[in-house]
Amino acid sequence: MEKKLSLQPSAKPPMRSEKDTIGNIEVPADRYFGAQTMRCVNNFPIGGMDERMPKPVIQAMGILKKAAAEVNQEFGLDSKVSTAISGVCDEVISGKLFDEGHFPLPIWQTGSGTMTNMNVNEVISNRAIEILGGELGSKNPVHPNDHVNKSQSSNDTFPTAIHISVATELTRSLKPAITQLRDALRDKSIEWKDIIKIGRTHTQDAVPLTLGQEFSGYTQQLTNGLERIDAVLPHVYQLALGGTAVGTGLNTRKGFAEKAAMRIAQLTSLPFVSAPNFFEALGSRDAMVEVHGALNTIAVSLMKIANDIRFLGSGPRCGLGELTLPANEPGSSIMPGKVNPTQCEAMTMICAQVMGNHVAVSVGGSNGHFELNVFKPLIVSNVLRSIKLLSDGCNTFTKNCVVGIKPNTEKIAKIMNESLMLVTALNPHIGYDKAAEIAKTAHKNGTTLKEEALKAGIAEKDFDDWVRPEKMIGPS
Amino acid sequence: MEKKLSLQPSAKPPMRSEKDTIGNIEVPADRYFGAQTMRCVNNFPIGGMDERMPKPVIQAMGILKKAAAEVNQEFGLDSKVSTAISGVCDEVISGKLFDEGHFPLPIWQTGSGTMTNMNVNEVISNRAIEILGGELGSKNPVHPNDHVNKSQSSNDTFPTAIHISVATELTRSLKPAITQLRDALRDKSIEWKDIIKIGRTHTQDAVPLTLGQEFSGYTQQLTNGLERIDAVLPHVYQLALGGTAVGTGLNTRKGFAEKAAMRIAQLTSLPFVSAPNFFEALGSRDAMVEVHGALNTIAVSLMKIANDIRFLGSGPRCGLGELTLPANEPGSSIMPGKVNPTQCEAMTMICAQVMGNHVAVSVGGSNGHFELNVFKPLIVSNVLRSIKLLSDGCNTFTKNCVVGIKPNTEKIAKIMNESLMLVTALNPHIGYDKAAEIAKTAHKNGTTLKEEALKAGIAEKDFDDWVRPEKMIGPS
Amino acid sequence: MEKKLSLQPSAKPPMRSEKDTIGNIEVPADRYFGAQTMRCVNNFPIGGMDERMPKPVIQAMGILKKAAAEVNQEFGLDSKVSTAISGVCDEVISGKLFDEGHFPLPIWQTGSGTMTNMNVNEVISNRAIEILGGELGSKNPVHPNDHVNKSQSSNDTFPTAIHISVATELTRSLKPAITQLRDALRDKSIEWKDIIKIGRTHTQDAVPLTLGQEFSGYTQQLTNGLERIDAVLPHVYQLALGGTAVGTGLNTRKGFAEKAAMRIAQLTSLPFVSAPNFFEALGSRDAMVEVHGALNTIAVSLMKIANDIRFLGSGPRCGLGELTLPANEPGSSIMPGKVNPTQCEAMTMICAQVMGNHVAVSVGGSNGHFELNVFKPLIVSNVLRSIKLLSDGCNTFTKNCVVGIKPNTEKIAKIMNESLMLVTALNPHIGYDKAAEIAKTAHKNGTTLKEEALKAGIAEKDFDDWVRPEKMIGPS
Amino acid sequence: MEKKLSLQPSAKPPMRSEKDTIGNIEVPADRYFGAQTMRCVNNFPIGGMDERMPKPVIQAMGILKKAAAEVNQEFGLDSKVSTAISGVCDEVISGKLFDEGHFPLPIWQTGSGTMTNMNVNEVISNRAIEILGGELGSKNPVHPNDHVNKSQSSNDTFPTAIHISVATELTRSLKPAITQLRDALRDKSIEWKDIIKIGRTHTQDAVPLTLGQEFSGYTQQLTNGLERIDAVLPHVYQLALGGTAVGTGLNTRKGFAEKAAMRIAQLTSLPFVSAPNFFEALGSRDAMVEVHGALNTIAVSLMKIANDIRFLGSGPRCGLGELTLPANEPGSSIMPGKVNPTQCEAMTMICAQVMGNHVAVSVGGSNGHFELNVFKPLIVSNVLRSIKLLSDGCNTFTKNCVVGIKPNTEKIAKIMNESLMLVTALNPHIGYDKAAEIAKTAHKNGTTLKEEALKAGIAEKDFDDWVRPEKMIGPS
Repeated sequence: MEKKLSLQPSAKPPMRSEKDTIGNIEVPADRYFGAQTMRCVNNFPIGGMDERMPKPVIQAMGILKKAAAEVNQEFGLDSKVSTAISGVCDEVISGKLFDEGHFPLPIWQTGSGTMTNMNVNEVISNRAIEILGGELGSKNPVHPNDHVNKSQSSNDTFPTAIHISVATELTRSLKPAITQLRDALRDKSIEWKDIIKIGRTHTQDAVPLTLGQEFSGYTQQLTNGLERIDAVLPHVYQLALGGTAVGTGLNTRKGFAEKAAMRIAQLTSLPFVSAPNFFEALGSRDAMVEVHGALNTIAVSLMKIANDIRFLGSGPRCGLGELTLPANEPGSSIMPGKVNPTQCEAMTMICAQVMGNHVAVSVGGSNGHFELNVFKPLIVSNVLRSIKLLSDGCNTFTKNCVVGIKPNTEKIAKIMNESLMLVTALNPHIGYDKAAEIAKTAHKNGTTLKEEALKAGIAEKDFDDWVRPEKMIGPS
Repeated sequence: MEKKLSLQPSAKPPMRSEKDTIGNIEVPADRYFGAQTMRCVNNFPIGGMDERMPKPVIQAMGILKKAAAEVNQEFGLDSKVSTAISGVCDEVISGKLFDEGHFPLPIWQTGSGTMTNMNVNEVISNRAIEILGGELGSKNPVHPNDHVNKSQSSNDTFPTAIHISVATELTRSLKPAITQLRDALRDKSIEWKDIIKIGRTHTQDAVPLTLGQEFSGYTQQLTNGLERIDAVLPHVYQLALGGTAVGTGLNTRKGFAEKAAMRIAQLTSLPFVSAPNFFEALGSRDAMVEVHGALNTIAVSLMKIANDIRFLGSGPRCGLGELTLPANEPGSSIMPGKVNPTQCEAMTMICAQVMGNHVAVSVGGSNGHFELNVFKPLIVSNVLRSIKLLSDGCNTFTKNCVVGIKPNTEKIAKIMNESLMLVTALNPHIGYDKAAEIAKTAHKNGTTLKEEALKAGIAEKDFDDWVRPEKMIGPS
Repeated sequence: MEKKLSLQPSAKPPMRSEKDTIGNIEVPADRYFGAQTMRCVNNFPIGGMDERMPKPVIQAMGILKKAAAEVNQEFGLDSKVSTAISGVCDEVISGKLFDEGHFPLPIWQTGSGTMTNMNVNEVISNRAIEILGGELGSKNPVHPNDHVNKSQSSNDTFPTAIHISVATELTRSLKPAITQLRDALRDKSIEWKDIIKIGRTHTQDAVPLTLGQEFSGYTQQLTNGLERIDAVLPHVYQLALGGTAVGTGLNTRKGFAEKAAMRIAQLTSLPFVSAPNFFEALGSRDAMVEVHGALNTIAVSLMKIANDIRFLGSGPRCGLGELTLPANEPGSSIMPGKVNPTQCEAMTMICAQVMGNHVAVSVGGSNGHFELNVFKPLIVSNVLRSIKLLSDGCNTFTKNCVVGIKPNTEKIAKIMNESLMLVTALNPHIGYDKAAEIAKTAHKNGTTLKEEALKAGIAEKDFDDWVRPEKMIGPS
Repeated sequence: MEKKLSLQPSAKPPMRSEKDTIGNIEVPADRYFGAQTMRCVNNFPIGGMDERMPKPVIQAMGILKKAAAEVNQEFGLDSKVSTAISGVCDEVISGKLFDEGHFPLPIWQTGSGTMTNMNVNEVISNRAIEILGGELGSKNPVHPNDHVNKSQSSNDTFPTAIHISVATELTRSLKPAITQLRDALRDKSIEWKDIIKIGRTHTQDAVPLTLGQEFSGYTQQLTNGLERIDAVLPHVYQLALGGTAVGTGLNTRKGFAEKAAMRIAQLTSLPFVSAPNFFEALGSRDAMVEVHGALNTIAVSLMKIANDIRFLGSGPRCGLGELTLPANEPGSSIMPGKVNPTQCEAMTMICAQVMGNHVAVSVGGSNGHFELNVFKPLIVSNVLRSIKLLSDGCNTFTKNCVVGIKPNTEKIAKIMNESLMLVTALNPHIGYDKAAEIAKTAHKNGTTLKEEALKAGIAEKDFDDWVRPEKMIGPS
């Protein structure tokens, strides 16, 4: 499988020569990338096809190159060149050129993403040349640097692509996925609003609540998670484009930054703007650390939710057994009939991965020096991977677990009625110390609360009136 | 030193007997805490006085106990009791009772903070009893559970104290400290707006910018940091109080939660409200993970800023030497005359600590089970420590480093003029490839760009007109 | 409390003047530290007394200063001076001078620990001067740099103190504490070797094992933990002393390093040696990252063990309830009679802290530059804190939890006999698919395995012979 | 590209029916996997082809299935079946069946790896059936559970595959890669043993050392790294095989575990043994946390080394400029002639990733419950990814960076001679305070040390005799 994209196949494919400032180099004849991409392929054989620069980054590059070409035309770029670039960008944006293998570079390259910027420049240049009937590698009539990269630098395009891709994935993938899961949990919360169950604190028996109330807590966690994404988006919408090499905007034109950001906003229907300070926008990747902080918090929420669900669904006979989870597959190769909370397991593993990715992003973000942070491919690949895993994880967890959960009402009722913790209802009537004494005696004797309460002199009528679970699930 | 608070001193102090549901136990006669606190002291000998529950948590407990007592009076609590509790709370809020050693419990206790809640209940009860002329330990006329803890549970008071203390420290300590540092950096940015210097990307020479522009990036990072704090505060302002044991509000009264939150808002002048969902507010500590995400991002920003400053100040003769940092102390015990960037070192160590604390908080946050997260003392102690370190760190970094930084203008100018990177200014005029050729030749020959440009056929007048650093610090 | 050590008390204490290369400065007359320490106190007001350089570092400094003085005497240092220094070092080693407040410096100072080295030099010098009848601050007849620091630099003494203190705490505190806990678990494992119980995988019912077997797994985890400590000690035993400022050993004498290491080994009874490469020993703190990796693994083990114990002890009536944990304190302020797994909670919080500290140490370790890592106080304070918390945590967890755990044999037997998972015993006899069918039918019908097995045509005698838990706890 | 392996292609491929305990399901006719694999594909659409279970795990599964089949034959398994299984295993071990797409499962599945174990069982069963002329899906004559999985459970096979794959990659990939880099650094260290240069501590000028000495520190760091790998291997060599479902070895035979481990040792030429305690071997993944602790330490070392190299190579004209790094590609799309330390950047990004992966592994390791840790695919995928990235990273860093580094001897000499730090050489002769005074004066006046020393009354002959860099690179 992975062999298909290999650049050193046993049967050497036809090659053509490309040139950069270092000299000539052979590249596969059927690929649009050129010399600089090829050097990177040769110089960074790290991790193979599993470690490629993520597709959304390439697609975002297509968006910004398109916007730049169109704005450059306003500032004098030949419209034939500009139109050709813009058209090819659509093929980048659609993912077609990525899927065909024209963007083979690994994450593990220069920390500025320069090689990926050049990969994009070369592919757009050569594909545009091809469309215009020119010769691949001739850089004529569409030059990768002078035209495709016009008014730009890797140092402002790559962070711009990071922000475009992350904002897009957050809004198009993650928010819908979390919303779907949140709504599924909320539906359960409403459906189960009258199922009274034992509460558990410290993993120990506590006072009752409804199963609906319990799931309303999970619902709220995810509603908060959605708010957390919204809270970090404003800094993601700020684009570095226009800062060029060090943030000064050298070799670009006044107005380019704002116009390009506006065009990107149109192309994406997201409220991108030009960053208020390009030195921050190039020198730091703080906005990504901030974004991943939100992802980390969401992972923490999901870990708690998935853990609760698997423990509440533990059994079938020797666990808590309050919930029955859907049986999607045989659970064990040795223990027939056993069905495991596999969706919870996939979800909690994803959460652990996101917590780890967060540290990678933070370490990368903290190590920028001077005018440029050079941990960018690391950072964006982790942010996008976390978004992807959380999105896919929420979707499959919703569909293959949450919607199919059934309450085991018989077990829920049985457990609750055995509990000693209903004694709390006596506190306001007989005081804490006396109530504690009754509970402890029942615990010691293996008797019920009622038995011990009557022995302690409480009238049966009072007990029945006071200790009613349905009266214990809210303030009085 | 630490011996002063020791509870097992060589000369056994006078003791009195206190009682809880387990039985009688001796406590030091001169302390207000009672049986449950004493049991915790004995059962959790972990870390000594260095690992005590942080003072701001205790003070926040004072605020909420005061609010609760006053609201409880509206719901029928004897005004004599309520007034006594409220008065003692002022002594808790002021920090006086903490400083006198009445809150000896460690962080490492029950994960719900129950023991600290009881410590507070016991101290307030006994101190109120003392004021009212009763006998310490008699629980009469002010009972720790029935009166001080009335309408409450550890499970809603402790998270409420967490939110109060964290919101207070964020707004009263950290935001002013970051603002002060941000303003000091901004002052430098303005002061140095005309000092043109070499830019550095990939740690390598790049095109010029002004020293003011460079520092404007740092300024923006901290402005964003302040926005990040503001973005996480809304969830911190949501209080768990009123949820009691599992979030249902059992044993409290309708309206208690809202009235208590309002009273806390008055006492703190911060916009606290009752949480929209108590099950989330007890079962998760997501808001703290979110807060620490902001602290982590701020630490990442500060690490970058402090690193840049120490590298720009490296020397005196063999480094970059663009900045002169204040000499606050002799730097080396063996190398006389050397002055080190010690404030940068303290700051970057703090940032590393905050990045580590973030993982502790996230792990704690992810491990809540069912109705209660029981990693609360861990979580709050890390959040408060990070806030404290960042606050103190920003204050001392501002005062003892940033305000005293001087630009080494001679060195800055010398370095910039030697740079080959000004060649970028030729790109728009002669194209990328030709410009690159000139720079490479000068690099190889150890000559200047101008020499090689003239040799390459560029007119001197053009060169002088094109290559002017002061024209390279913005778009054209 | 903290006020006692304050250096800016309301009533200004008597002061004396001390001098360093920067100039004169006032220091408290009753303290032995001098000018450089005082500058650090003034310049680094970060975190207060809670953030002091840990006592074991100061004590380790005492050990190495003693060794250095004695070796320096061999190389010509006046024996009166040497003997005085050596004598004072005993007061440092005992902790007396630390407890009296002569080492007030915070962790958050210069990243090399230079200020703490100077604090030690100053205290030893002044105390020796005092003993010899001289004038404090006169540096005569014992000079802090020329005599106490002779043949040394902060850059080799501080890492040496790190290694001495960490090796000592690992061997004297942590290993005994883990051994004690391991032995307590092993005792339970032996005691409970015949209690057959249901196993749980994926938190779901699985095939049986004995409670003793379950605890033997925990025992093995800690035995491995002890091996992990032993595996990291060799690099900790390598001392930087003799490398002086940059690793070359400038200003020291040939043989000094080896003799000093040998003397330290004698003083500590630990096999310290001179590091094989001083450049590594100063430029990196890898050995501490390695040590903390072991601590992190041990924390991971303990988190698992403590989690298992609290879940197995969950109840009293609505959880798994297989174990009864000791009731050390009242568990809830609102729910009388409830006893919580508080020791497990303290332990798991400690483990989360250690996991966080590990990241702080790793970030610090990764950021060394050139000849010196300057995240040392951060690193050592985290390593020592993790050791302290794990040591105290293991001790209290052993004493207040593990030794008092009782198996709830009735519940254990009841749960196991209800389980469907004994069906696995049928696999070798009737095949996986048929066995699975029986289990699924029993699950659906709420019947027992035996009922369904007989219906499926298995002879009762065969069933009884095949499905015997006591035959299922080992290979056949 | 990714479309090739898609299981929902636009043109539906020929399908066949397979069956498991849940029922029938369609699978692609040209794949060997069966019903359970297909269910997992459908139930876990998480991350696509980029998130597949790593190939080395599948290959290791092949090794253990081969060993098991051969040992099972000794215990009575039909030799025809055993031989067929063993033969197919060779195709798994070679990677052929993986490359052909028969192992499509994602990392994000059940946390026990059960689905991957079943995927392997199904593929081996069907491929063996095919070879023996049977019908795919018939489970006859080679049954996936009864024959391929005989005497095994997912719960002991998957951890065994983890240990086999990790031990193999550590010894076959990582150790050689680190050794190669270590040797390249050692070669430089020897080659440059006489190049005296300025040392830097706190990023500031310090006393001299040789460039060879500096690189000897890096060499030692990696030598220690190799020792760290060796120190963690013993626990990796312990195999869980024989523990079956919960560690008891139910449904396996006495002796199976030891014989299988011995066979695996033969097949791999690595000293695998049967784990001393199967309950630890199933319930925890501590050995992987331990392994990743070593990887984390190695990442920390490499981060420091790569950082130093890029800072020492900073320039070409405005940085430290002591080293010239190889120019492998054009560095900037806007700044012609600039060559960036891209290999250092790739390496430091890898190190940050490894530091993040470490947290994911630790979180996963800490969350095991009862008899089985169910974060295994997460754990092994991170450990193997870290090993892969570090291995590839070391190889490319060696080849494309370290071997091509040249010292810039002119710059090195110039910088050193300008330094004031040679003053340290005066300490033993005139004392610390006086030496400091001379250095400070020279610094203030912009003069040389010698000028100020002579003014301070030192004889020129003495100065020249005392201050000689070549005499400052070792003890006297």
